[in-house]
Formats: sequence, C-alpha cells, structure tokens
Amino acid sequence: MTSNRHLAPSPRTRVRRLPDRAHYDAATVAAILDEALSCSIAFQWEGSVHAMTTAHWREGDHLYVHGAKASRMMKALAAGQACVTVSLIDGLVMARSGFNHSMNYRAVVAYGQFEPVEARADKLRHLEAFIEKLAPGRWAQLRPATTKELNATTVLRLPLDEASAKIRAWGAKDDADDLAWPVWAGVVPLALTRGAPQTDPQSAVATPPANLA
Amino acid sequence: MTSNRHLAPSPRTRVRRLPDRAHYDAATVAAILDEALSCSIAFQWEGSVHAMTTAHWREGDHLYVHGAKASRMMKALAAGQACVTVSLIDGLVMARSGFNHSMNYRAVVAYGQFEPVEARADKLRHLEAFIEKLAPGRWAQLRPATTKELNATTVLRLPLDEASAKIRAWGAKDDADDLAWPVWAGVVPLALTRGAPQTDPQSAVATPPANLA
Repeated sequence: MTSNRHLAPSPRTRVRRLPDRAHYDAATVAAILDEALSCSIAFQWEGSVHAMTTAHWREGDHLYVHGAKASRMMKALAAGQACVTVSLIDGLVMARSGFNHSMNYRAVVAYGQFEPVEARADKLRHLEAFIEKLAPGRWAQLRPATTKELNATTVLRLPLDEASAKIRAWGAKDDADDLAWPVWAGVVPLALTRGAPQTDPQSAVATPPANLA
Repeated sequence: MTSNRHLAPSPRTRVRRLPDRAHYDAATVAAILDEALSCSIAFQWEGSVHAMTTAHWREGDHLYVHGAKASRMMKALAAGQACVTVSLIDGLVMARSGFNHSMNYRAVVAYGQFEPVEARADKLRHLEAFIEKLAPGRWAQLRPATTKELNATTVLRLPLDEASAKIRAWGAKDDADDLAWPVWAGVVPLALTRGAPQTDPQSAVATPPANLA
C-alpha cells in the first residue's frame, strides 16, 4: 500500500533544526500517520491562521480527513493551502541538565491543498478505510450509511508529496562533564494505550470484539 | 494559580460546530493545558501557513514554550499571530453506524501573539516550572543552567486571553432506530501512559525517583 519513494525535501519540509532527526522516505511518513489517530491542520481563514485537531487516516500516498459539510474547516481546507502536523510522543528524556532534557517523538509535517472526494462510492470506500483503521472488521457489522449521512459528510484528501518526518528515539545526550552529576538520568516511555472497553448499557452485543478488548 | 475568570468567546474562539461541547472558563482551559505535554502551534512565515509541535507549560494566565534562539519558529512566533491547539484523546466512541462514530477528547485552542521572556532570572524561573511539570522536585537536582545555555534558549509566552476548550466525554449517541443493531457499541478508553523508566547506562543514580517510576 505504501510506495517506497523518496520525498525530496522542499524549502518547507526540509528540517533545519537538528537535521539528524529528519526522514524523507514515504514509508517512514506513512508508518507515523498510520499509528497516530489525530492530526492538527493549520490553515488560513478570514485573515487569521487557524488550527484544528481532527482524526485522519492514510491510504496509499494520500492523507484523508472527514467532517461535517457545514464546517468552516472543511470549506477553508478545500480553498487553500494547509499544513498538517502529526506527533506521537514516545518518552520524556531526563538529562543531567535542564538544557539537555528532551522528548522522544515521531512527527510528520505535510503541506499542500486538500481536494474533495466527490463520488458516493469513493466516499464510502474511504470512510470504510477509516473505520477499519480503528477497528478491523467493524465496517461490515455496522448499520449501512444512508444517502443523507453521506451527503452531510465531506471527505478530503491531501497528496503526501510535500511531507517529512522527524524522529528522536534515543537516550539523554549530556555533556561529557555532566555524566557523573548525581541525578537519575534516563527515559520515561510514553504511549497512547487503550483501556478496557466500556460497553454501552443499550448495546445489543454485550461482549466487545477481541481486537478492541 | 488559575484564575476562575470567564473567557468571553471571540469570533475566533467561539465554537460553531457542536457548541454543546464548548467551555469558556479559564480553569477548564488550564486543566487541559496542564495535563497535555505538547501543543501544535500554527503561524505564518514567508507566505505559508506552518505548524510545529512543541512541549508547553502553563503558569497563571500564560502558556509558555521554549526553543533554540536560532529556530525559525521562535523568530516567527515573536513577530506575528499564532494559533495553538492542544488535544488529549480520551477514547474511541464505537457507535452502531459509521456516521455516529466519534472520539472523546479534551481540546484547547488559543489565539494571540507570543511575547519573549527576556530577563535571565525570569527565564530561569519559567524553565524551572517546565521541568517541575514533568518531574516535580527535579530542578533542584540538576546541574545548574549556564549563561551560555540561557542565551541560546528563547522562552516565549502567550496570554490566554483568547482561548476556548472543547470536550466530548460521553458514550455513543446513536439514532433511536439503530440501538438494537447487532454490533457491539461502547467506548474504548485511550490515555497517554508512562511506562517503566529506562535508566541511562551511565546514570550516576541507578534508581529512578518515585514520581517517575
């Protein structure tokens, strides 16, 4: 599903700060987008910079989002450039000095203009991919989408042509003179974890599927 | 530390979509900012919209960030308007229809212009607050900051005057006709959780402090 192409850094995606953390291959970008559940999308609207968080998914070389047809973000995104950021926070890096404290993370930034997915069959197929990302096998079990629901939903996609990743995945990097400083140093791992499913009191099926439990 | 003032919604912070999820009190905004470790900051720079993820902390009625003095984001933020988003993803809401699937979340959006913290003593005090947010009691144990480090670090703060929160914290909201549909419905909780600390092989102290373990 993912091409192994190289994404040539653009003036906007080339990582300037700490370039040893930069990755420009599509597979690395895709893996981060696939693990993350939500992104922040920055855009211009009525003379201001705005940003909103929304769920996303990826298929091939596109990032997808959806929303209410009436939302201002959906309208603004279809009309101009956007900048999408996705971040997975993987750990707190505790060094011997405040200056060398850091976080481990995997982040993506992507620039471009979203385009609408118009055809009913295409919308359905992409919304299926979104549900399947969250809970594989679930789409086929759901009450099918109605025409009214599809008409009220905008699906937009961003070509992942101008994207880069930035990753920090190592321990504390302290000055040699500081290594003996009498403080604990190391990494505190962080991860977004799923808890035990909470069944809706009116759920017709009492037991959550194995892939959600 | 937190005022209990009400933040009158501005044209930019008034929640238009799903206004039953909106909160405009400073205490709700502060609690979300205090729990979250990172934010996405959208800004304009050289004719494009950009966004970057960075760690943040809050003191009183200001949001703080820091970065390398040489970074383009630090320079751009000191020069113009920004939009900060913070999101805590609390759960996947699994409904009977794809349309009614949702996420539980606590989010903040804040608009304004960052201002630099210039005085050496002020910078130190605010960086201390940042470290203490991550690991209470740690600042006093660290190798003290040097003048060179402080000079290389920019600390910026955003007044939380134009901010709002949006919260979804409930179960699936399905159409009455769908309640009997034969699929599991409920919420899968999500939380950013800390794992067991990984001690640096060269750490002078072998045992992590209790508040990190």
